[in-house]
Amino acid sequence: MKARGERLAALVAERELDRLLVTDLVNVAYLTGFGGTNGACVCGPDARVFLTDFRYTERAAAEVEGWEVVTVKDDWLGGIAAHLAGRTGFEDQQMPVRMLRKLEEKLAEGVSLEAAGGTVEKLRRVKDEAELAAIAAAAELADDVWRWSLERGLAGRSELEVARAAEARMREQGGEPSFPAIVAAGPNGALPHAEPGERAIGRGELVVFDMGAKLDRYCSDGTRTFATGEPGGQAREVYELVREAQSAALEAVRAGARAEDVDSVARGRIAAAGHGERFGHGLGHGVGREVHEEPRVSPRSADVLEAGEVVTIEPGVYLPGELGVRIEDLVVVTTDGHRSFGGLAKNLQVVD
Amino acid sequence: MKARGERLAALVAERELDRLLVTDLVNVAYLTGFGGTNGACVCGPDARVFLTDFRYTERAAAEVEGWEVVTVKDDWLGGIAAHLAGRTGFEDQQMPVRMLRKLEEKLAEGVSLEAAGGTVEKLRRVKDEAELAAIAAAAELADDVWRWSLERGLAGRSELEVARAAEARMREQGGEPSFPAIVAAGPNGALPHAEPGERAIGRGELVVFDMGAKLDRYCSDGTRTFATGEPGGQAREVYELVREAQSAALEAVRAGARAEDVDSVARGRIAAAGHGERFGHGLGHGVGREVHEEPRVSPRSADVLEAGEVVTIEPGVYLPGELGVRIEDLVVVTTDGHRSFGGLAKNLQVVD
Repeated sequence: MKARGERLAALVAERELDRLLVTDLVNVAYLTGFGGTNGACVCGPDARVFLTDFRYTERAAAEVEGWEVVTVKDDWLGGIAAHLAGRTGFEDQQMPVRMLRKLEEKLAEGVSLEAAGGTVEKLRRVKDEAELAAIAAAAELADDVWRWSLERGLAGRSELEVARAAEARMREQGGEPSFPAIVAAGPNGALPHAEPGERAIGRGELVVFDMGAKLDRYCSDGTRTFATGEPGGQAREVYELVREAQSAALEAVRAGARAEDVDSVARGRIAAAGHGERFGHGLGHGVGREVHEEPRVSPRSADVLEAGEVVTIEPGVYLPGELGVRIEDLVVVTTDGHRSFGGLAKNLQVVD
Repeated sequence: MKARGERLAALVAERELDRLLVTDLVNVAYLTGFGGTNGACVCGPDARVFLTDFRYTERAAAEVEGWEVVTVKDDWLGGIAAHLAGRTGFEDQQMPVRMLRKLEEKLAEGVSLEAAGGTVEKLRRVKDEAELAAIAAAAELADDVWRWSLERGLAGRSELEVARAAEARMREQGGEPSFPAIVAAGPNGALPHAEPGERAIGRGELVVFDMGAKLDRYCSDGTRTFATGEPGGQAREVYELVREAQSAALEAVRAGARAEDVDSVARGRIAAAGHGERFGHGLGHGVGREVHEEPRVSPRSADVLEAGEVVTIEPGVYLPGELGVRIEDLVVVTTDGHRSFGGLAKNLQVVD
């Protein structure tokens, strides 16, 4: 945690700011280790202050390392303002307008606030070994839950039943879902963000099963598409197309690759097969403390991949009214390629 | 849902605004019925527009009633801006600074944005019959889970085990926790926001058990303090003080009562018994779609209670290093008093 504060202080100086006020709670937790629900921190070359209220004084003392812990009594914004100095950056992507206006009223002479959102998110992109281990553990838990779900069978149960059972299993095993599991069978699979419904999963359908675990504050995210009984020719053809596109995109992942180029490897193959219009979302996104974070792997991304970044690679093809296929792996970018988390097979699994 | 749009339009006109842009997702869901994760709405005397993206077009068509449904293609903020007019209010308590700045760049000539946060929250204070029924069902579910938890026993199990089991039971029964359950035994009970820990609950301890269910989008919230075996004299004395303070405060609840007066009924009794310093939080808060919403029942509240508002009444006394007692009921304000949700006994229950 101490190193993160130091790296952030260097970024703050680089931006010619005197201080950065961090109010996004995920960022605060990343920097300080604090796990409560009210905290903020102020970082600069000469400042490393964590602020919370009386409810969390003891907890902060136990959790926060490398930051001075300050308990603010009554006036939260006044307490924060007292630690700002000179040109102070704030997280404009998160701070509500009202909070900014009230905070501005409390600033001392000579202190100004300017938009500096995204600074901590940049630090969060590259994961350290402890973070990679946490993500690997989350991905393993999700794999276990997929296997457990398949043992219980898909056909004849409702999407909702399968999804809720998987989430309950995750909690029993000490984790929690990193987002509500998606189980979308047959034509529902064509809705990329379908919510699981009461409809029973039929035989001979494709089932998109998108799920992630959260363990020790880190998320996983992955998708497999299963077949309940022998799939038809079109289903198999679309599956193989997506699988091939996913595999080609994975091959393109490495430190220094442009995210948009990786996206276009998959997108180009799907378009060449005549389904360009049927892949209506980006290829992937970063995963860490949040299940969607930087970098973005999409046609409009300006990101360049760096070693240690963790991203999903998840092309899909969605045929409205018929079926959907999505295959998603979670990988860490390395200097010469990638390493996958989780180990579920990617050939089309025909299951019960 | 249609009636809510009309009531909001009247409030908008009253504030001399032409439109109100609603971006807080809980508010959007309250007004329109939309249950997805991306939506906004624009309301005014001559406008009732709900906006979402392509992922939710079908869902919005099924869920949203009384509002024109618009799917925004690529430029979300541009799509919103196209529906704003004249003096448009926005939810400054929620909208991030960056979003406001980008939205301002897209405004048509003659359109201005001004802070109008809290307008929908005001509407949400008074619950209609369907909302009261949903809250009652959530409270009943929580009661069932308390009874189930007591049957399994408290002493010898860890706080965390009791809390996680209760949450799992809630999910099995089709609900979910409205917040992470608090189970705080012995000296931990003196931390009003303790997180359940690994420590085994002992015999002869007081156990603060604060829990709520969420069912059909509405929350409950309640607390009971149990004794594992015959409590000592001090424990019983503090318990009876809190119980008496809670009962007196409940008697003071009625439409037209000032929230700060209701708070002071409980606070006064606790202070008179010499524990004024040991009740360090407000007496209560509104509950609905969120587990903490308006009105506030505290010494600094300017709210006056109205019939149909749902609030908690939850005094507590916390003796550091020794024990805590909190007793919390959820009630709906009526013209001549209140009606309680849930029916757990309030005399000190000695349990296993």
